[in-house]
Order: sequence, then C-alpha cells, then structure tokens
Amino acid sequence: MAASALLKSRVRRPSYLKKLARAEDLIDLFPNGSYVGWSGFTGVGYPKKVPTALADHVEKNGLQGQLKYNLFVGASSGAETENRWARLNMIERRAPHQVGKEIAKGINNGNIKFFDKHLSMFPVDLMYGYYTKHKANNKLDVAIVEASAITEDGGVIPGASVGASPEIIQMAEKIIIEVNTASPSFEGLHDITMTDLPPRRKPYLIMAPEDRIGTPHIPIDPERVVAIVESDYPDQTQPNAPEDATSRAIASNLIEFLKHEVDHGRLPANLLPIQSGIGNIANAVVGGLASGGANFKNLKVWTEVLQDSFLDLFDSGNLDFATATSIRFSPEGFERFYKGWEQYNPKLLLRSQQVSNSPEIIRRLGVIGMNTPVEVDIYAHANSTCVMGSRMLNGLGGSADFLRSAKYSIMHTPSTRPSKTDPHGVSCIVPMCTHVDQTEHDLDVIVTEQGLADVRGLSPRERARVIIDKCSHPEYKPILQDYFDRAEFECLRKGWGHEPHLLWQAFNMHKNLNEKGTMKLDSWDA
Amino acid sequence: MAASALLKSRVRRPSYLKKLARAEDLIDLFPNGSYVGWSGFTGVGYPKKVPTALADHVEKNGLQGQLKYNLFVGASSGAETENRWARLNMIERRAPHQVGKEIAKGINNGNIKFFDKHLSMFPVDLMYGYYTKHKANNKLDVAIVEASAITEDGGVIPGASVGASPEIIQMAEKIIIEVNTASPSFEGLHDITMTDLPPRRKPYLIMAPEDRIGTPHIPIDPERVVAIVESDYPDQTQPNAPEDATSRAIASNLIEFLKHEVDHGRLPANLLPIQSGIGNIANAVVGGLASGGANFKNLKVWTEVLQDSFLDLFDSGNLDFATATSIRFSPEGFERFYKGWEQYNPKLLLRSQQVSNSPEIIRRLGVIGMNTPVEVDIYAHANSTCVMGSRMLNGLGGSADFLRSAKYSIMHTPSTRPSKTDPHGVSCIVPMCTHVDQTEHDLDVIVTEQGLADVRGLSPRERARVIIDKCSHPEYKPILQDYFDRAEFECLRKGWGHEPHLLWQAFNMHKNLNEKGTMKLDSWDA
Repeated sequence: MAASALLKSRVRRPSYLKKLARAEDLIDLFPNGSYVGWSGFTGVGYPKKVPTALADHVEKNGLQGQLKYNLFVGASSGAETENRWARLNMIERRAPHQVGKEIAKGINNGNIKFFDKHLSMFPVDLMYGYYTKHKANNKLDVAIVEASAITEDGGVIPGASVGASPEIIQMAEKIIIEVNTASPSFEGLHDITMTDLPPRRKPYLIMAPEDRIGTPHIPIDPERVVAIVESDYPDQTQPNAPEDATSRAIASNLIEFLKHEVDHGRLPANLLPIQSGIGNIANAVVGGLASGGANFKNLKVWTEVLQDSFLDLFDSGNLDFATATSIRFSPEGFERFYKGWEQYNPKLLLRSQQVSNSPEIIRRLGVIGMNTPVEVDIYAHANSTCVMGSRMLNGLGGSADFLRSAKYSIMHTPSTRPSKTDPHGVSCIVPMCTHVDQTEHDLDVIVTEQGLADVRGLSPRERARVIIDKCSHPEYKPILQDYFDRAEFECLRKGWGHEPHLLWQAFNMHKNLNEKGTMKLDSWDA
Repeated sequence: MAASALLKSRVRRPSYLKKLARAEDLIDLFPNGSYVGWSGFTGVGYPKKVPTALADHVEKNGLQGQLKYNLFVGASSGAETENRWARLNMIERRAPHQVGKEIAKGINNGNIKFFDKHLSMFPVDLMYGYYTKHKANNKLDVAIVEASAITEDGGVIPGASVGASPEIIQMAEKIIIEVNTASPSFEGLHDITMTDLPPRRKPYLIMAPEDRIGTPHIPIDPERVVAIVESDYPDQTQPNAPEDATSRAIASNLIEFLKHEVDHGRLPANLLPIQSGIGNIANAVVGGLASGGANFKNLKVWTEVLQDSFLDLFDSGNLDFATATSIRFSPEGFERFYKGWEQYNPKLLLRSQQVSNSPEIIRRLGVIGMNTPVEVDIYAHANSTCVMGSRMLNGLGGSADFLRSAKYSIMHTPSTRPSKTDPHGVSCIVPMCTHVDQTEHDLDVIVTEQGLADVRGLSPRERARVIIDKCSHPEYKPILQDYFDRAEFECLRKGWGHEPHLLWQAFNMHKNLNEKGTMKLDSWDA
C-alpha cells in the first residue's frame, strides 16, 4: 500500500510505512473473546478506523453476539464507535468508564459486564495483570492507538488525549496505530511517563502544574507494531452544555467561598491549582473565574479534562497554565484552539491519566477539586454513579481521585432535578445516598444554587443541620429536617446517635419518586 | 522545682529545666473551650500527667460540664485518660479516632461532637486551619506532647508513637512536654518529617520501608514551650486479642491466596510491604506468616501500627524491616521489646501518621493492605465505622488510606458474629452496607473463614455471586442468594440492572436483627 504525502509527513519512522494497512484487512487480528485496548479519553483521541471496520464486518455478516470483546479504554471513547459496538452486541466486558446511550443500555440490561474503577488506578491495575488474570499470557491481545504523529524511534505522539495509552501499549501483545491526518499534529503538547511496578516505582517529581518529568511521546517496541492505518476524520465531539441560572448561582456561591478562604489566609491570592469537571456547572464556575468579577489572577489548572470554558479563561489573561489528560473541546472549541495554537501551546500540557489523577500529586499541589454528583446525603456522602443505587450512568471517573485527595473537596449540584411529572421531583439532597462513591470522610463543601455548606471539622449531626439549611431546596427542607429530627430523636434515645438514621425509612423519598413521580413525601410515618 | 537525675539525663536542653512544672500547677493554661492537641496514637505515647491533673481538678471541684475541650489526638489516646475526660464531661469535640467505652458512649448519646477523618489527612487538614477556623488565631491553644527525651536543640524524641505530634506542635501556640522517665528513651527509632503547605509541599522520597528522609526528633520552637513535666508511668496497654479457630482459618485462606499470586508472577517471592491492623485476625495473619508453613522470606512491613505478633515475625527470621507510626505492644510485648532492643532497633522505624498512611507511598510501594470491617456487602462496599449505620465504634482510622491505595486491598472478617441470642445472629456479609467507608471501587479481595472472593476486574453482578458463594456463612448463603436473585430479576426487567438492589428491602436483615435478635430472615417478601 502506498502512503499519502500527508501520512509520510506524520510518520518519521520509515519501517512503519511498510506496515501500512487498510482497517478492513485487520479483522483477523480480532477473534471472538479478544482482550482489546483502545486509546481515548472523554471522547477524544480514540481509534476510529479499525473499530468501525470491525463493526461493519459484524453488521455485514450478521455476526451480532458472535464477535464479542473485552474492551479497555482509559475513559469514554467516541460515542459513535462505542455505541455502535454496543448496539451490535460486540462488548462482553468494559472498563472503567463510558459515555453513550447504547452502551449504558447494554450495561443496565445485563448484556455488558462493566466495572468502574478510579481512573488513576485503572492503568496500574491493568499493568498488575488484574484484568487479564484468566489469560495464559496475562496480556491484552491487541491495542489500537490513535497517533497524531510518529517519531523517528517509532514512538507515538498522541492527539487530544493521553489517558491510559502508555499502559495499554505496555500491556499489549500487538499494537495497531491509527495515524490521524485529519487533525494537526499535537507534538510538544505531551509529557509522557511509563509505569514501573513495585518495588521499582518512583515518585512523580512534579511540584507545579507546568513541571515536565517525561518524554514528548509514548516509547514503543516497534516489533510489536503490526499495522499502521491512516485515519481521515477528526474526533466527533459534542457542543458543551450551556450555563443556566442555576449553574450560575452555584458558581457564584462557590466563588464567594473561595474569596472568603483567601481573605482568611487559607488560600493564596492566586488560589491553588483548580480541578473542574465536565458539564454546565463546571462551565459556569470556570466562566465565573474568567469574568472580571472574580478577580483571581495567575491561576493554574491541574485537572482531568479541559472543556471550552478554559479557552475563555486563557483569553481572560487570568490563567497561567493548565494541565490535564484530555482536551475535550467542542468542534468550535477545537477550531479556536488550532487557530490560537501559538498562544495556548506554551501554557498547556497533557499527561497520562495515572498522573493527571494521581492522589500523590493532587495532595501535594493542594488542588481545589470540584465535581457534580447524582445525589448527596445529609451527612455528606455522595453518589456519583448509580441512580436508585442500581442504574449505572457513566462510571466513577476521576471523581474520587480528586475528592479524596484535594485540599478542597467540593461537590456542586442543583438542589433539585426535574422528574417526568414535577419540575422539582428529584431532590439532590437526600437522607441517605442509595449508592456511595464519596464518603463523609472525603467532602469539605457542598454547594447548590441555594447556598453553600462548609462541613470541615463538623460532626455528622452538625453537618446534617448545615447541609439541610444551606443546600436543600425550600420544598424539601421541611421533609429533610423532619427525617433528621426523627432519626436524631430515635437514635440518641437508643444510644447510637453518632450519625442518626431511620434505616427502614431512609429511602422513602426514592420510593415515593418511584411510585408517585416525586420525592415530595407526605410523611415519614411508616 | 528541682529536676531528678533521671530527668536531667533525658533533657539535654538546660533552659527547659527552668520550665519544669507540676501538672497540677498548669490548670490555668486550659480555660473552658480551649483547643487542645495531645500526642499519642493507638494508646501509646499519650500525655498522662497533665490530662490526669485536669481531670482531678474537675472532679475535685465539681466542674463536670463546665470545663470542656476541643480535643485533637492523632488517633486513640490512653483509655484511662480519655475515658476519664469523657466520664467527667470534659470533651466538647474530638477527632479523628478514639478507643474507650466512655468516650464511645459520649459520642453516641450526643454529648461529644466527634468526626472521623482519614488518619493521613487529619494532620494536614489541621495545618490548613480547617479545625480551628472559628478561632481568631486559627491555632491550637495548647499541645501536650509526651517525649522520651529532649535534644540539645530542644527537639522532642517521641516514645512509642509519632502520630500527629509534628503537626500538633506546628499548630500550637503553647507547648507542654511531658518527659516520660518510666520508659526507656526511644532515641534513634524515629524518622520525622514536618509539614509544608501547598504550593511548597515536596514529594516523600521514600522508595522502600527502610528509607529515612527526616530527622530523629521533632524540631520545636523553644519559645513556645511553656512547661516541662516529668511523667512517671508507662503506657497503659492491654493484652492482644488472642487468635481462635476462625481467625486462623481466615489467615490460612489469605496466605494461600498470597502464594497463588506469587506463583502467577503478580507478587515477588518475598511479597511486597505488608500492612496489617490490630485485632485477632491481624494477629493470626502475621502469626501465619511467622510460622514455617507460609515460607515467605525477607518480608518487609509498611503499616500503621505494630502489635506483638510482629515480634514473633522478627524472631522467625523472616522479617527484614518494619515501619509504622506506632508500636502498640502489650505490657509483656514491651518487656520483650526492651530486652531485645539491640536486635529489633536496626530493623524498625517510626514515622508520622501522615507518612505511614500516605497514599503516595502506599501506592508507590505496592503495599498489601488488610483490614477488618463491621460488614461487607455483596458488591464489595464495606462499613468500617457505624453499626446499624448510626452507632460509632472507633472511627475510620487508616483503613481507607490503605485500602484505597494498596496494590492488594483485602477485607478480612468472620462470616458471622454472635448476637445476644444467636451465635451466628449477625452476618458480616449483607445485601447493602448500612454505612459505606470503603467503596466497591476500592476492594480487591474479601476473605472469611469460609473462603476467599477475588473480585478484581469483576462486574458488580459477578462480584455478588462470588462473594455470596465463597464468603458467606452456610446459614446465610440462601438468604443472600435469594436477595440477589430477586434484585437481579427486578432491576434487569426495569433496565437498571448494573448493580441490582431492592432498595426498600435492602436493610431487612438488619431490621430482623433489631426486632428478633438474628439476621436470619424468613423471607424477602415485603
């Protein structure tokens, strides 16, 4: 096969061009039951050609359910590939995070075996052989990794994400590289570290977000590279969720709190490195920091993923440096990013998810961690993953990596969400979380559009009072207060009142939602 | 006041001897509402004279409830002092861990505001000012720290624990040092690091349990030392909990698993550093490693606290090095330790709890973490703290520091405990934990005397099957299996079957225990 001039300009290792192949000719590398690793994180930098060719093959030959794979990706891959695999019943097992309607459906109807794991921990558990322990060679069979360029040594220059690619490459018997020529080369934007195993692990010598400790590419054993495929279409990202009045009110409460902490000497004037997630609240917070009102200068960001609002923060002149494992811009955001490359490039660094989410570094830097949960309870536990304790949304992600180790562990959420029949049918503040991903020992601050509860150093009963008072929606405040008062009375009476609960009624608000379409319970009487 | 010859031999800073005082003359330093820090960890190295003098003062003058303190200690202090304070209603607030009947009673009847925090995190949150934020100076008023000797610089040589003493000293306006002359000087046994705050924190450059990165004493500002008190009685420790058939069976299952991991190349022949807690299961595990059968050589230990069984492990010749933040031996254990000082001393190191429990180091070293919970659920969440979701036992301790970051995160528990009326009235495997301290994303292995469930890489429904099958007691197996089958059927039908639960019945076994004295439920029908 002849390489295009564009491809040749990206692949500086000539021997790789001899391995040039078409995706549809690689089907035989994927027998049923294979253990497959993909690059990709939050829907950017994922392989596109080979997964699509495999899906085409299954669809064309009616092989649904007969070619099923154990699929490991740093976090979510492109919805269009992963969803299609799910729809074609090609996924036997999946970890540690996913986004997409069809894949969530497959997980919740029992078709896909999914487990969610701390994103910082997934790559090293993979290296430990924990996920391949039933295989004789304890390896992944094939890795499919997208590159934006290839070095002289044969190393991979990733695109808009690093994720778990270093470890997936370390663990794979065979490697397929998709060189994406539809997007620019991202060379120079990465700081790559590979994973040694104990007792030979070393500290991450990072003392500030801009510190580089690795190489600009992922080193690779060229003999394990079995094919190079040219990929000709960019990451299919979605527009960002827009801000609204609620998210702006949450952001405003949060920014006021950060100012208060600066005023009291617990934060420097330029804060500490900020972590912010995806979604409209995160957008509003970062937007709030970018606007003049907040007046924080020389900010730095240590986070998992950057979305469009960080471009505004750069443009405001208040952001000195940002590092993450993925830049998940909207299509317009990517255009803006490429146009401003010379301006953004020196202030940006992408690392592996094991480093971006490393508790070691998050704790050392004193990161300000912010995240959105499914629900928070009155004692400051949070549910990040399972609606009604059972239905998986996307997975844990890096929420617990950051919220356990951050200096400020902040959960921001609207106080309510709509149910099908009631615009405030779901209270995000509940008596007891139906699933716990973040414990009461992890969270410092809960913030809604109603207000902010600072629970640092408070006992559970103090926490409950301030969370109900500051964070809950007025329609739910009396319901939650009544639960707490009854629980406190009952439990203190019995001498087990440290964290009072009415265990047999704790989920009655959820039950009411299930039966009547709203959490607005008439009474806690059994 | 004249110093005894013994005291002079321990205090090498002459100016301190001018500050020699009797404990009963220091009462005025402790006005009502003071924020007080004590040294001590797991009942060793705590101050004895001043707390006792304060209790005497309250008792003698009928001041119960009129002199109340906010008390911060690295972990548990001596039961005799802390319990007495609780009995005399002298504790307004307490963190982050405690042991003692009276203090638990005060916490659970609402008299003492207690919060439990990750032991690795408590000292730095204290330094952040999170626990003193309502005070104008954001400091602890007084620290009372036990020393086994004082250096020329005025630095403190701790005794059998380091705990949070470095940070308590850093945060205190005034410092009282109790020099304990009833026990030997522990000089040379410590490696002390102080805490810098972000953005000036540095990596802990520890690559092996024996690495030293600090000083042999806690540096101190001599001007803040307001009094030196001679202390004349040793730590009041209790005998260790003896092994029994159940704990030996658990240990045997666990050791078999470790051998299996070595055989499959996932562990080196000398394992990786071991963390083990307090209690009879931990005793049996360490005892099992010491006995000939296990045949592991050149072991190392990275743990929070060492109990007597580690002396056996040293004596077996199989333990090369052990480090912790506390050595909590029984009185006989201490005698044996002092007698064998020359032999044990070069193989032992005590560090601050921020270092012994550091996620950074635990992850880097690939520690094998083991802990005992209140209960574990079928999806591998664990409750470490609150019985019936409400009644506090001792606190979180370091359980989550280790279980989140260890290479092997292992929960060991008997499959049942007795209730008042049924020798197997309480199943330690339950459908849903009534309180969650360790999440499903944290645990790798659950082990009981019945068997061992290796849940690495398993989806929740797979986990439930293996935990019920391998770990539950035969009398509870059908009950748990019935719960799971019904939950799976219901939730898959509704399309929310990732982690199936019957939310409204999830605590019915606990309800049955409460009402009928046993978790042996007749039926899951509502």
